[in-house]
Amino acid sequence: MATVRKPLVIPAIDPASVPERKGVTQYPEPFRAMVAGRARRVLGDALGLTHFGVNLTRLDPGAYSALRHWHSLEDEFIYVLEGELTLVTDDGEQTLTSGMAAGFPAGKPNAHHLHNRGTTPAVYLEVGDRRPGDEVTYPDADLAMRWSRAFTHKDGTRY
Amino acid sequence: MATVRKPLVIPAIDPASVPERKGVTQYPEPFRAMVAGRARRVLGDALGLTHFGVNLTRLDPGAYSALRHWHSLEDEFIYVLEGELTLVTDDGEQTLTSGMAAGFPAGKPNAHHLHNRGTTPAVYLEVGDRRPGDEVTYPDADLAMRWSRAFTHKDGTRY
Repeated sequence: MATVRKPLVIPAIDPASVPERKGVTQYPEPFRAMVAGRARRVLGDALGLTHFGVNLTRLDPGAYSALRHWHSLEDEFIYVLEGELTLVTDDGEQTLTSGMAAGFPAGKPNAHHLHNRGTTPAVYLEVGDRRPGDEVTYPDADLAMRWSRAFTHKDGTRY
Repeated sequence: MATVRKPLVIPAIDPASVPERKGVTQYPEPFRAMVAGRARRVLGDALGLTHFGVNLTRLDPGAYSALRHWHSLEDEFIYVLEGELTLVTDDGEQTLTSGMAAGFPAGKPNAHHLHNRGTTPAVYLEVGDRRPGDEVTYPDADLAMRWSRAFTHKDGTRY
């Protein structure tokens, strides 16, 4: 007989209870299509964590995790839970299956992303810390993430 | 026919290639027995990450993740991969099975640990960031982790 369990409450969480954000991105066009098949459950925010982010992310067949990139100030970690993903870096390609991991130290200029070249969804955990001033470099695209200063109202809206 | 894969190379890693540290702890006696059945593979260090730690941790039946504790300055996150774990906090107990997660924000005084009350090993990922000045409070034991200053030689050894 299956055990009936009470729903988890914070500080525990069932990731299925966290809304899935599919294809949500801040990328400008024409870069959004690459992540249209990416769906994230933002577990860290749901748990009240602020020092690092944790997402449970699904890539449908054909989808990418991101444009190939590296961070100036933030460490990143990924752990594959289901399916098969191709990790593409400056050094070439590797295939990651369930239980395999990868890590990208801050400031190391080795651009990376994950690509689902399989026929079934792939699921992984991704962790990245949060540092003011972090900048992102995308060697394959005319795109960069940079910081700049500008005068704003006290509520942060621009003049 | 099974596919023969090349061994993963950094920035990817097969956690099985990372040595397991069983029962290793900085706890003084008489607290070491609680974690004698805890075995960690320190993935974050192996991947060159420095901003946060990531361990792939196994608790044998009867083992605890730690003494019940909370951190003043560090966020913590756990994700259960195998087996069943009892999460004990100030608010009571919850049972976490494969695929469930929990998070402990820095400075929130809700002491927590995991206990394997089952008959098979349990495996989880644990992530915690690293902040100088972090202190740890253990409400169930005559134990604390605090910072203090002392004169040392230039190599860090004490006078």
